[in-house]
Amino acid sequence: MESFDVVDLIRAKRDGGTLSTPQIDWLIDAYTRGLVADEQMSAMTMAIFLNGMGREEIRDLTAAMIASGERLDFSHLATPTADKHSTGGVGDKITLPLAPLVASFGVAVPQLSGRGLGHTGGTLDKLESIPGWRASLTNAEFHRQLESVGAVICAAGSGLAPADGRLYALRDITGTVESIPLIASSIMSKKIAEGTAALVLDVKFGSGAFLREEARARELAETMVRLGQDAGVATRALLTDMNTPLGRTIGNANEVRESVEVLAGGGPADIVELTVALAREMLDLAGRPDADPGAALRDGRAMDTWRAMIAAQGGDPDAALPAPSETHTVTAERDGVLLEQRALPFGIAAWRLGAGRARKEDAVVHSAGIDLHAKPGDTVRRGDPLFTLAAEDPARFDRALEALEGAYRIGDDGDRSAAPGPLIRDRVG
Amino acid sequence: MESFDVVDLIRAKRDGGTLSTPQIDWLIDAYTRGLVADEQMSAMTMAIFLNGMGREEIRDLTAAMIASGERLDFSHLATPTADKHSTGGVGDKITLPLAPLVASFGVAVPQLSGRGLGHTGGTLDKLESIPGWRASLTNAEFHRQLESVGAVICAAGSGLAPADGRLYALRDITGTVESIPLIASSIMSKKIAEGTAALVLDVKFGSGAFLREEARARELAETMVRLGQDAGVATRALLTDMNTPLGRTIGNANEVRESVEVLAGGGPADIVELTVALAREMLDLAGRPDADPGAALRDGRAMDTWRAMIAAQGGDPDAALPAPSETHTVTAERDGVLLEQRALPFGIAAWRLGAGRARKEDAVVHSAGIDLHAKPGDTVRRGDPLFTLAAEDPARFDRALEALEGAYRIGDDGDRSAAPGPLIRDRVG
Repeated sequence: MESFDVVDLIRAKRDGGTLSTPQIDWLIDAYTRGLVADEQMSAMTMAIFLNGMGREEIRDLTAAMIASGERLDFSHLATPTADKHSTGGVGDKITLPLAPLVASFGVAVPQLSGRGLGHTGGTLDKLESIPGWRASLTNAEFHRQLESVGAVICAAGSGLAPADGRLYALRDITGTVESIPLIASSIMSKKIAEGTAALVLDVKFGSGAFLREEARARELAETMVRLGQDAGVATRALLTDMNTPLGRTIGNANEVRESVEVLAGGGPADIVELTVALAREMLDLAGRPDADPGAALRDGRAMDTWRAMIAAQGGDPDAALPAPSETHTVTAERDGVLLEQRALPFGIAAWRLGAGRARKEDAVVHSAGIDLHAKPGDTVRRGDPLFTLAAEDPARFDRALEALEGAYRIGDDGDRSAAPGPLIRDRVG
Repeated sequence: MESFDVVDLIRAKRDGGTLSTPQIDWLIDAYTRGLVADEQMSAMTMAIFLNGMGREEIRDLTAAMIASGERLDFSHLATPTADKHSTGGVGDKITLPLAPLVASFGVAVPQLSGRGLGHTGGTLDKLESIPGWRASLTNAEFHRQLESVGAVICAAGSGLAPADGRLYALRDITGTVESIPLIASSIMSKKIAEGTAALVLDVKFGSGAFLREEARARELAETMVRLGQDAGVATRALLTDMNTPLGRTIGNANEVRESVEVLAGGGPADIVELTVALAREMLDLAGRPDADPGAALRDGRAMDTWRAMIAAQGGDPDAALPAPSETHTVTAERDGVLLEQRALPFGIAAWRLGAGRARKEDAVVHSAGIDLHAKPGDTVRRGDPLFTLAAEDPARFDRALEALEGAYRIGDDGDRSAAPGPLIRDRVG
């Protein structure tokens, strides 16, 4: 591999220049091997944040991060594979019903997931509410379950794109997270290294997403779809609204409960809509364009796969989920229509109740969170329950309620001037 | 002291915001105490590099760096004090004749100096050519010499603006050196902490300076003059041309030899001109506007102070200076006029001969360097010596000559169309 002076590369990016393929290959390899220091990489990421990266640089960065570790391969499977990634939201439990739903059609779903940090929850945290369920699998267990059940949701090993792992931790402490080239290459390097043949992205915008503006989310979606396609992965993205919490639960155990309702053919309309839409895209990319995911939710096929998937990882699908010892219900102060329910403050409130973690080392409280009794557009009467906070420690209610000040609004029916747009705003790819 | 989240501060500067006085105070204090990591500070410096800093932010940054260490105080001296700082050039030995010259008028010159790195030489390296001379003084020795001789050139202790020392080392490896807010606060924090009442800056522009453009050098000069005045130090700057090497020597021992010629009333016209001009500014700011520094060079007063200054630090002013064991002289290939002699390649060539160091740990070769036999504007005949390279190891000549390809040009007298501007381009403050 050709060798470079890292200070020259930083200066080039600092001055608005373009890094070549050998330069990016060397940079990421040298960073992985400790020849480029964290302080040099953080100056580089700030220069990338402020000066951007061209399409080829982003592709090269993604490829270099994939090359920093191992790459999974499912080409030996008899079935096609499809994977999904969400950029993260409030109440986003879609992976839970989605993976078994898609697998129930004979499409393998090798879903490597993460834990939550800050106000967005993590899929593994939610599933760990289920007594006995294990997030960590050996390679052999993972492949066996993928062949027998078809769906696996488990922790990603540290061997996939390790350069991305280090770079992400660095970006987190140096204020360089919200950069489209850096986000896109981070997500796609892991997803491509995971070896799926088809990938559907749920790219969110709005108050509960980390990109507020729809235009920026669209740019991210387009960048990631191109990266997937350039790497030979059939990739599509849905652009979805994250201004309002998804479904009626925010937390961990309560989100599992809601997911099981969806798998039983019920559940909130928005969760069903997004689950079915994402399933349809995954099935289409996997060569099953005629599959009817809505039917598989109604007739119990998806539930059967869910039960097998949970049981294969040591979980008891029939076990009672942790229930909170303390609850606090907020009621409507007047008659009217719930006009607004903002995702970010509800996410922060659930986090403060114990559903999320502030530092990687923290544990989450599985029973903590928020149940929403009304959704925007619903008519309420004075005294009707609006939402219930749940925690193990009642001292947490005050700071959660503080976060919720101004987070929802009840008005007259005539005030519903600005109707919210559709949940699924667009499809990219 | 109020406390902040460093990631919030990085994001604020990243997004083009302004940091407040308490924020900058906290940042530098926390960095000095290890609460802000190097990788966070390097992201911050890149954000400052790209988004700039306002006048008040630069003043706050300078004050915070001064506050990170001790501050000298010469207010007990019976004599006024004056100091000089050059932003660095090729063949810039001005401090050597200047400090004793100013001191010979009863103005104390406490000149804390550095070592060279890269193609610009360091004052301490040059003086260490003199057998016995010591750069390190105790505090007591320093003050005693300042009272008895009036001039001290010695190494700065690590107690002055230690935050600047760490930050400078970080900028050096992260490509954030050439930033006016960062350069200005770095230089001025050290100079203000040194406790001088008057300060004259020699801000250089051109191929041999680290700022190429005159406009940028002027901006730096204006920024530094304002910082000095805001801190109660009478400050002025000369803007000087560094496209051509200063004087006829580049190296260490040969630069001392040339300085002694100037102190003896001779020496190259450009060195005399700049030395006298800087001395006049220092003497003026120190309350001696009528002093005639040219006369003190001619009548031996400056030389007497030089001899006392060198002897006070253990040096023998009469000792023979190290002479090179190998030399190589380049001659004119044609008759004509020397039209150009570019500072940067000559600086790099002297560095490659051993006069400079690539890493802080390296030693310099005191006898190595370049003697210039002709200066731009001089008429030469084919075969006349143009310059002589000196080294201990003749293997070094090849790479030095490589650096010098295209570095000088002999033409016809009529080609002297673009006459170089004056050495001293302007005065700021």
